[in-house]
Amino acid sequence: MNLILLFNEDFTDDGRVRLAGRRLRHVLDVHRAEVGQELCVGLAGGMIGRGRVRRLDNETLEMTVAFDRQPPRPLPVTLLLALPRPKVLKRVLLAATSMGVKRIVLMNCFRVEKSFWKSPALAGDRLREPLVLGLEQARDTMLPEVLLRPRFKPFVEDELPALCADTTCLAAHPVAAAPCPRDLSGPVTLAIGPEGGFIPYEIDKLAERGFTPIFLGERILRVETAVPAVLSKLF
Amino acid sequence: MNLILLFNEDFTDDGRVRLAGRRLRHVLDVHRAEVGQELCVGLAGGMIGRGRVRRLDNETLEMTVAFDRQPPRPLPVTLLLALPRPKVLKRVLLAATSMGVKRIVLMNCFRVEKSFWKSPALAGDRLREPLVLGLEQARDTMLPEVLLRPRFKPFVEDELPALCADTTCLAAHPVAAAPCPRDLSGPVTLAIGPEGGFIPYEIDKLAERGFTPIFLGERILRVETAVPAVLSKLF
Repeated sequence: MNLILLFNEDFTDDGRVRLAGRRLRHVLDVHRAEVGQELCVGLAGGMIGRGRVRRLDNETLEMTVAFDRQPPRPLPVTLLLALPRPKVLKRVLLAATSMGVKRIVLMNCFRVEKSFWKSPALAGDRLREPLVLGLEQARDTMLPEVLLRPRFKPFVEDELPALCADTTCLAAHPVAAAPCPRDLSGPVTLAIGPEGGFIPYEIDKLAERGFTPIFLGERILRVETAVPAVLSKLF
Repeated sequence: MNLILLFNEDFTDDGRVRLAGRRLRHVLDVHRAEVGQELCVGLAGGMIGRGRVRRLDNETLEMTVAFDRQPPRPLPVTLLLALPRPKVLKRVLLAATSMGVKRIVLMNCFRVEKSFWKSPALAGDRLREPLVLGLEQARDTMLPEVLLRPRFKPFVEDELPALCADTTCLAAHPVAAAPCPRDLSGPVTLAIGPEGGFIPYEIDKLAERGFTPIFLGERILRVETAVPAVLSKLF
């Protein structure tokens, strides 16, 4: 936790911040902070600053806070991700958030196991956990938007055209001919398929929407490795 | 498992391959293979080919195999990694191996917790597991070499000069001035520090050995995210 992410409900009437639970435990056990010390804080959706510890015991952390700078710039990318298995999902969301992705669409594909859509990891609060951890990791405050799209065809036909308008549209595909572009500055919509890849129908559908299949190399990477690798190459 | 990694002891006297244990279970439960089907196989340290399933039941998988091509090219990089916490170590080793790293030095740093060096994850067989999984993921056969260096100063002073000779030497450092270079073709020695980063003494010691501190961006990434991100940018 390189930044303590604060929400409106963390503030008391006199403008102090009062924390318990996970963040308190982390400050006690990992930061091993003391009264008087300053910690990096950020207001969810807002600015970054410093919090000075005014009280710290096993029940409560109290800080006075001052915000003075903007969070880091987001990556100009919308990530379309075939829904990964639940234990991987959390790590991928954390990694993508820490790298600055602000819109993630978890979509269905033929090779996504049906049971993944029933995972408790997709419920609102559980889905938000890795996003918060990713922001705290990267000292960011702007929560990404995560969209669940359990039907491929209506998503790609009806919703994707508006979502990807005026962006460079790329789909990672093991048998693509084009190499992964580097060092882009404009906005990108990046599609990453499931284990085993997109099926030809899916690649065709994405190509109809203007997606260029790109080749990421001979080595097949796990999605949690591929996401940082591709994002880092693109920007 | 995109490739079944085979070792000499998997071969019977008549040249067939006979597997039990983890690889058998994976072929049964994930590949759901049947007799007659072909699977991608590779000989540890050698070539890649196809294995045809001749017998498959709950006890044994038997295949005839033929090898016909070289594994993918390695990344020309030596990775010096501050020893991460044990649960992270496995994921980082797997990711680095899948990306083609062939030499990984797990080194001590001031901010590496002493207890990490006592982890059972560092024992020979346990350390090899994520390497094998990384090769199987990326369809590679060449096991990386992993060196454990629990003392920073003697490693950097006595051993590193030979290890990093004639390579571009880079140390990821949050307050560095130089950006991460892109698209290198020659060999690189890349140092990645612990959570919290290298201390100034360590950066000075690395600089004495010719390492350029490089800046990976404002966002602080977890080591399992940073490793694929940096490797992907460099090559």
